[in-house]
Amino acid sequence: MNRLTLALDVMGGDFGPRITIPALSLALEKNPMLSFVLFGDQSQCSPLLNSLPATQQQRITFVHTSRIIAADIPFTQALRQSKGSSMRLALEAVARGEVQGCVSGGNTGALMGLAKLLIKPLPNIERPALTTLIPSMNGKSSVMLDLGANVEADSQLLCQFAEMGNIFAEVMLDLVHPRLALLNIGTEENKGNQIIRDTHQLLKQRYDLNYIGFIESDKLMNHFADVIICDGFSGNIALKALEGAAKNILSLLKKPTPDSHLCQTAKRYLLRAIFYRYYRKLQQINPDRHNGATLLGLSSVVVKSHGGAGVNAYFYAIDHAIGQIRSGIPDKISQGLNRLHQNL
Amino acid sequence: MNRLTLALDVMGGDFGPRITIPALSLALEKNPMLSFVLFGDQSQCSPLLNSLPATQQQRITFVHTSRIIAADIPFTQALRQSKGSSMRLALEAVARGEVQGCVSGGNTGALMGLAKLLIKPLPNIERPALTTLIPSMNGKSSVMLDLGANVEADSQLLCQFAEMGNIFAEVMLDLVHPRLALLNIGTEENKGNQIIRDTHQLLKQRYDLNYIGFIESDKLMNHFADVIICDGFSGNIALKALEGAAKNILSLLKKPTPDSHLCQTAKRYLLRAIFYRYYRKLQQINPDRHNGATLLGLSSVVVKSHGGAGVNAYFYAIDHAIGQIRSGIPDKISQGLNRLHQNL
Repeated sequence: MNRLTLALDVMGGDFGPRITIPALSLALEKNPMLSFVLFGDQSQCSPLLNSLPATQQQRITFVHTSRIIAADIPFTQALRQSKGSSMRLALEAVARGEVQGCVSGGNTGALMGLAKLLIKPLPNIERPALTTLIPSMNGKSSVMLDLGANVEADSQLLCQFAEMGNIFAEVMLDLVHPRLALLNIGTEENKGNQIIRDTHQLLKQRYDLNYIGFIESDKLMNHFADVIICDGFSGNIALKALEGAAKNILSLLKKPTPDSHLCQTAKRYLLRAIFYRYYRKLQQINPDRHNGATLLGLSSVVVKSHGGAGVNAYFYAIDHAIGQIRSGIPDKISQGLNRLHQNL
Repeated sequence: MNRLTLALDVMGGDFGPRITIPALSLALEKNPMLSFVLFGDQSQCSPLLNSLPATQQQRITFVHTSRIIAADIPFTQALRQSKGSSMRLALEAVARGEVQGCVSGGNTGALMGLAKLLIKPLPNIERPALTTLIPSMNGKSSVMLDLGANVEADSQLLCQFAEMGNIFAEVMLDLVHPRLALLNIGTEENKGNQIIRDTHQLLKQRYDLNYIGFIESDKLMNHFADVIICDGFSGNIALKALEGAAKNILSLLKKPTPDSHLCQTAKRYLLRAIFYRYYRKLQQINPDRHNGATLLGLSSVVVKSHGGAGVNAYFYAIDHAIGQIRSGIPDKISQGLNRLHQNL
């Protein structure tokens, strides 16, 4: 396995270095050929970095900047303030080819906007799409795009998302003919708005794609499709609703009760012993494992972690970036689109 | 308490009379002043009706029709085929004032279309909105509209949904200044599409409404707002994603294991005994309890049950219709809108 270097916006996310540094340490531990270039505030990071094993510290290059893009400012404002920020420096390192990819938990709009600005899109790509894997009840995953990079999308763009999602699923999920579905509010031909109905007609004519029709958002976790295509607005609404429901319900099972600690621990173990099968299943759909969305359609791998991600979740975002770089996702998308366009 | 008569499209829903008749029997049992006019196929319903207690049978009037609107046909086709169908007859009984409201689990598009066609909208109402109560983690509920009656909605229409939702929450949730929020993909001012940003500006200027800004779909179950406003497309996507996630996760806890029946039962009781608090909480967010969406803005109460509702869920849809009729929702909406328009 070859050496691999990732840029990390160590300040991004709600908790900054307190989460990103333990997470990157976990990634270093699990990937012996991995190294990091970190961008962030030295004074905040040093105590955490110094506590890492010396062998890990040797695989980290630190670039100091005190500038951070705030989580809640609009893209235009973020762009003006972005110069020298941890996020922009990380993306610039990707653009210069010094690292193979980048992970950030910072301002989503800024990350998408800056990535589109700084990193070359692949040939034939109109607009990149924020793409993630979502968990299914059977333990498998589905690809879903777009999740917010394009608030509005016409039929041509949605068809391109289908093409990109198709290739992403082929490579990342190891599928031969991924089943593609279009997110809609019903499964009948007449449902949805004009753009969705037009896209449906266009995709039905694409014999090179395994398009299976509409999917409703209550079936997202049921593995009825391998790739779910939507505009960024609907996709964001659907995914966040799913995540919110999952987190809320799982939190009920974890919530501490007014019992004593011993009693709580006893309960937890008893529950696990009795219901270990359920626990394993709940674990499969744990949103943490699916943290990390990719801006698909760029010439390098840029992964966005949830702002509120914990150490484990942030580790998975890093892990997704590594997986995509190792699989050569940008090249595969580019080759696949070329092949599709030649065949048309 | 006064007498109350409901029309029931007894054939509507995936399971027809096998679900609707046990559910209406439950409603009759709990509401001594309630009676029903049923519309459906006599041969299918008679065995089920004959098994009901004689005192309940006396409170049921049966109108035979063999015509049913199929669940999966588009509205235009449904309209052509609707004459004499169980759904249309039920709505016509409402329109003629023979009953105070109507419940159906049939074709949503057809029910909304026919209801708008047959039942007078309230004065000043541009287009009715499909409205429901959604469960919160704290055991309370939020109002959400529109859920699919209007695939597209401009800012004026969204503001009207806000007005109707405000009054619905005041009456049904017994609130003084319900907190109104607009569904969006972020909480910053610049997020979303033009229509949503315009609506946000309009609602911010409405000092008669307690508008609190944007809400993201991962917070829908967290009772951050009492009324959630959205177009029918986003609302449908969000609600179904929520329901799908909730049902899927709850099903993990209910799913039969390969154990013997005795062992299963023992496990179930043991779990309940240990985790009765969790069970009670899971019960609160059980989607069944929140089954039933109202077409708000009509002069009578029309409630749509989920097509796949079971007996309990369908009972709750009937119960919601009763609650709205007893509270005089259509009149209150009408008076409230008048008051709002006079004050403007």
